[in-house]
Amino acid sequence: MFEQLGLVGCGLMGGSFALALKRAGLVKRVVGYSKSPSTTERARQMGVIDVEAPSALLAVSGADIVLLAVPVSATEATFKAIRHLVRGNTLIMDVGSTKREVIDAARRVLKDQVGLFVPAHPIAGKELSGVEHADADLYHGRQVILTPIERTLTAQLDKAQKVWTALGCHIKMMSPEAHDAAYAAVSHLPHMIAFALMNAIKNQTEGKEFLSLAGPGFRDFTRIAASEPAVWRDILNSNREELLSQSRLFQQALQAFETALSSGDAQTLEALIEQGSHARASWRMSVHKPKS
Amino acid sequence: MFEQLGLVGCGLMGGSFALALKRAGLVKRVVGYSKSPSTTERARQMGVIDVEAPSALLAVSGADIVLLAVPVSATEATFKAIRHLVRGNTLIMDVGSTKREVIDAARRVLKDQVGLFVPAHPIAGKELSGVEHADADLYHGRQVILTPIERTLTAQLDKAQKVWTALGCHIKMMSPEAHDAAYAAVSHLPHMIAFALMNAIKNQTEGKEFLSLAGPGFRDFTRIAASEPAVWRDILNSNREELLSQSRLFQQALQAFETALSSGDAQTLEALIEQGSHARASWRMSVHKPKS
Repeated sequence: MFEQLGLVGCGLMGGSFALALKRAGLVKRVVGYSKSPSTTERARQMGVIDVEAPSALLAVSGADIVLLAVPVSATEATFKAIRHLVRGNTLIMDVGSTKREVIDAARRVLKDQVGLFVPAHPIAGKELSGVEHADADLYHGRQVILTPIERTLTAQLDKAQKVWTALGCHIKMMSPEAHDAAYAAVSHLPHMIAFALMNAIKNQTEGKEFLSLAGPGFRDFTRIAASEPAVWRDILNSNREELLSQSRLFQQALQAFETALSSGDAQTLEALIEQGSHARASWRMSVHKPKS
Repeated sequence: MFEQLGLVGCGLMGGSFALALKRAGLVKRVVGYSKSPSTTERARQMGVIDVEAPSALLAVSGADIVLLAVPVSATEATFKAIRHLVRGNTLIMDVGSTKREVIDAARRVLKDQVGLFVPAHPIAGKELSGVEHADADLYHGRQVILTPIERTLTAQLDKAQKVWTALGCHIKMMSPEAHDAAYAAVSHLPHMIAFALMNAIKNQTEGKEFLSLAGPGFRDFTRIAASEPAVWRDILNSNREELLSQSRLFQQALQAFETALSSGDAQTLEALIEQGSHARASWRMSVHKPKS
């Protein structure tokens, strides 16, 4: 299907995409670039990429499919670095967890070529980062959100849908705004809460002792707190308005619990818990991934 | 080791204890009582208990080991119901997630016999409740916290340690106060946050749509929100002071993130995330349970 993937960012997300694309027989050659030369070298040694490129520009040179798998804040600089060698029929995608800032950057930098860019957010990841954890199965059975804009070329959108479908993803189309609002609620806020909870415990005199007593509920609740700081700094920052708005709603909901607790109103407390418990018990992930 | 277990409360925790005790060959006979007759009947049909008792009092009649596995708020009434048939050498334990209120109730009701009671909190559970989910392996490889008081009899404490050790638990002794402070931080607050987050999302116009987009991070983060409302109403309520104090510390930590976000201070934001991420990445559950 494709001759050459130009991969900018050979970490967990980019590396997994390259492995999956290769395994599906969708690409003949992967040329990769990472900011850290040791990552690029490791990616080649692992067979994630075939050729190491010394720059983002040279990674996309001759590519008919380009994936940017860099922290969101590096997107604009990456567009700038590659724009001179982007060809008129190349499919360009990203994997960023926020979409509005990425799209604004694409408009500013790619200009007339912005139609080549199909913004993508695969709902997959691990709390472990780096090419060492790249996994050809990472995207299989997951949702991928595509947020095309008016200027997105139909041909590129079709190709993008074919690629993700071939990797076993279920595609959902949304506006960038709706995407960013939804993921502020169901992903960015939970991450911020998990980071904050770890900090709140760790900074207490007895924090270490407390942590030694924590069980499986805590383990699952805080798993996402181990996510990569630079990546999540960018995600939270680039979606700050929606995130702050979701955080306010959450704090109001928390306040309702505190009021019921403080006033000893067990009936209201139970009603609040019942509502949350029912909402969670009746929730299922849209896409179920078979256990590997 | 024991002739008869008197089990008051045949749900997930009590049922799992009975099954584990039987499998370990530590008890000859289990007599069980639950508030709901259909639960008691189901427990007998499943082989969790051998004999259905029509009251808590008759469940403990003749027992040399008694387990109270009822919501924390039902503990005092249960002590009152059984005290007349408690024998002088019986080991009485509970499995409550908070310890101070339970111990106060034991002092008030059991009076001179309070030394028979060894307060216990096994760090195990599932978000699924009911005897249907009882599991002889639930406690295996987990921590159990014992919070004896001055009047606890050494003989009973020894027996309690032997029982839990035989079930594959790792025992930790703590004061009731230290226990309640620690679990406010690492268990009760995470539950309250998870309930509150579900409510905050669910109550938005687009809440249903948002939830349909959530992925594996959200799944794990909110798993504990599906816990049983009546049980958690009691736990939160009976530890309200420590919980409110931990909630304040958490909200301060969250506020630090919001301030960094609002002021666009990416450096501080990254430092805050880095702290949380490092704390979580370097954390390990004290006891690792082999995957079943």
